[in-house]
Amino acid sequence: MKIRVGLVGYGTIGKRVADAVALQEDMELVGITGNSYNYKMAVAAQKGYGIYTVASQEDFLKNGIKPAGTFDDLLKKVDVVVDCTPKKIGAANKEKYTKAGVKAIYQGGEKATIAEASFVAQCNYDMCLNKNHVRVVSCNTTGLARTIHAINQKWPVSTARANLIRRGTDPNEHEKGPINAIVPSLELPSHHGPDVRTVLPEVEVFTTAVIVPTTLMHLHALSVRLKHPGPTAADIIKLFEETPRIKVLKAADDIGSTAQIMDYARDLGRNRGDMMEICVWEEGVGVYGQEVFFMQAVHQESDVVPENIDAIRAVMGFKDGKKSIEMTDRNLGIASILGR
Amino acid sequence: MKIRVGLVGYGTIGKRVADAVALQEDMELVGITGNSYNYKMAVAAQKGYGIYTVASQEDFLKNGIKPAGTFDDLLKKVDVVVDCTPKKIGAANKEKYTKAGVKAIYQGGEKATIAEASFVAQCNYDMCLNKNHVRVVSCNTTGLARTIHAINQKWPVSTARANLIRRGTDPNEHEKGPINAIVPSLELPSHHGPDVRTVLPEVEVFTTAVIVPTTLMHLHALSVRLKHPGPTAADIIKLFEETPRIKVLKAADDIGSTAQIMDYARDLGRNRGDMMEICVWEEGVGVYGQEVFFMQAVHQESDVVPENIDAIRAVMGFKDGKKSIEMTDRNLGIASILGR
Repeated sequence: MKIRVGLVGYGTIGKRVADAVALQEDMELVGITGNSYNYKMAVAAQKGYGIYTVASQEDFLKNGIKPAGTFDDLLKKVDVVVDCTPKKIGAANKEKYTKAGVKAIYQGGEKATIAEASFVAQCNYDMCLNKNHVRVVSCNTTGLARTIHAINQKWPVSTARANLIRRGTDPNEHEKGPINAIVPSLELPSHHGPDVRTVLPEVEVFTTAVIVPTTLMHLHALSVRLKHPGPTAADIIKLFEETPRIKVLKAADDIGSTAQIMDYARDLGRNRGDMMEICVWEEGVGVYGQEVFFMQAVHQESDVVPENIDAIRAVMGFKDGKKSIEMTDRNLGIASILGR
Repeated sequence: MKIRVGLVGYGTIGKRVADAVALQEDMELVGITGNSYNYKMAVAAQKGYGIYTVASQEDFLKNGIKPAGTFDDLLKKVDVVVDCTPKKIGAANKEKYTKAGVKAIYQGGEKATIAEASFVAQCNYDMCLNKNHVRVVSCNTTGLARTIHAINQKWPVSTARANLIRRGTDPNEHEKGPINAIVPSLELPSHHGPDVRTVLPEVEVFTTAVIVPTTLMHLHALSVRLKHPGPTAADIIKLFEETPRIKVLKAADDIGSTAQIMDYARDLGRNRGDMMEICVWEEGVGVYGQEVFFMQAVHQESDVVPENIDAIRAVMGFKDGKKSIEMTDRNLGIASILGR
């Protein structure tokens, strides 16, 4: 029997997770929630997604969409919800899910305490097995966790330092800035470091963050200190090449910016031009003594999408995390890149 | 027998036209040209496109791609080429095409004099029938021609005035600016006005242009004076709704910027997130006396793609322009938008 999934909050992440759920052979997208009519709802209706209303249905009916029911109706029909609502609304919804006896996946905008565990599939899938409330960490935290974990598995990490150069806002959010400033996060460490430790408790991670005027991706500059000397830059590159959901951009590819990564993802025919893998520049990897330096780009709109799919399987008791990652990646077309 | 098409110049427009050719039932994409290996070539090879080299093959071979031949080899196998090379290279290639007895479609970066006629399918398909050299006009000119022509057909136009607010560069071109300035075009009229007249000679068009720091789309603010009073704003909106390759954005869609149009195109699952239609904001249409005002957005990367497909059919003698437009639009998924 398929896992019956409800999608609550149909924004940047929610609409992507909905499409991803619909592509999994072991899942059924029962429906999504909607507040009011807009272009996103119009396309969701075109795709045949059932729309369950949070407020009045009038706005939908007026624009030619017949809702499939209400938010409460949706909760009666599903085994698990993925809550992709804006920050703090997930927390407000939690009681609803508990009452309805529905498992829930939250996003990184919520506090870690909302859930029994935070989640990055490659780091701690097993810890989230059969839990009722799990939180997928944010896009930046996911990016850091994937690469630091990969190194830590093979060459134990003593400390990780990362400077996050963050995109100002998402491509469709024209109301926000900055348009011509660099904005430092004056919280030290930035919240990302502690957040990485919710999935990699054994690694000492410290992060700083600045916001720059771009919408396309985040970029992380990392310095990872190993407990013992060992790998060369070539070893690190090979490790990343062999790790799921990390993509090494080769020098010959001639991809010189986040802008060109996004163009490359469009060329590949990815749904919405998304790049769900963390992209590491081959030439940006260096090893000096026990310290590994590298630069990675994180597509804030999509890198957590496969994580949400795996989190659904974990809470529903699908035991093999590695197999879940493989299924997800195959169904989302994450693989076979540049002939590698 | 299918029309055998070669694609010369595999950049922003070229790669899109290649994909579009491959989707037409009456065309065969014989191959594309490539200067050297990069991510675009890697993806083209993955798609199975034959790559014909302009310079040395070594760079391709070193990166695991076996070229199908040289540029000259390609010219021996095709009926028509679409030349999407940078400005002036098309003119330099013309002699090659003439010598090889191959018909050629050029882009708007070339001077109008390169070809026997300039082309916008809805305006002057018939004029380009069986020609050997045809030039598809630029993205901005195409956008202006589509909407002005639609009005002129129904309500004769006396003069058209347009202020073009142009994107600084394409999304993947991180080398170019501006990043924080508005750059006026100090040529009056800007070249777009005269260029529109290459396809709509009977309309007096004057344009001004400024460049702003965005990569997503151009925006045109138009004022079109009619020879006689007549239509209301609602009439103009209805006309645009009924015209191919123009899309009216309704107030309820809540699409408030070029950024959101691009997000909408991604939601629709369009290849590369492209929006090939000229988008007119419903609320932006107004009629005052004999003057029609409206604002439209033009996706510079893709609006000329369907035009190139129709131009291929025109030069190859396919007589029914209206049918060509329908075939092209069906194959490219231009239709059935927001349930309209």
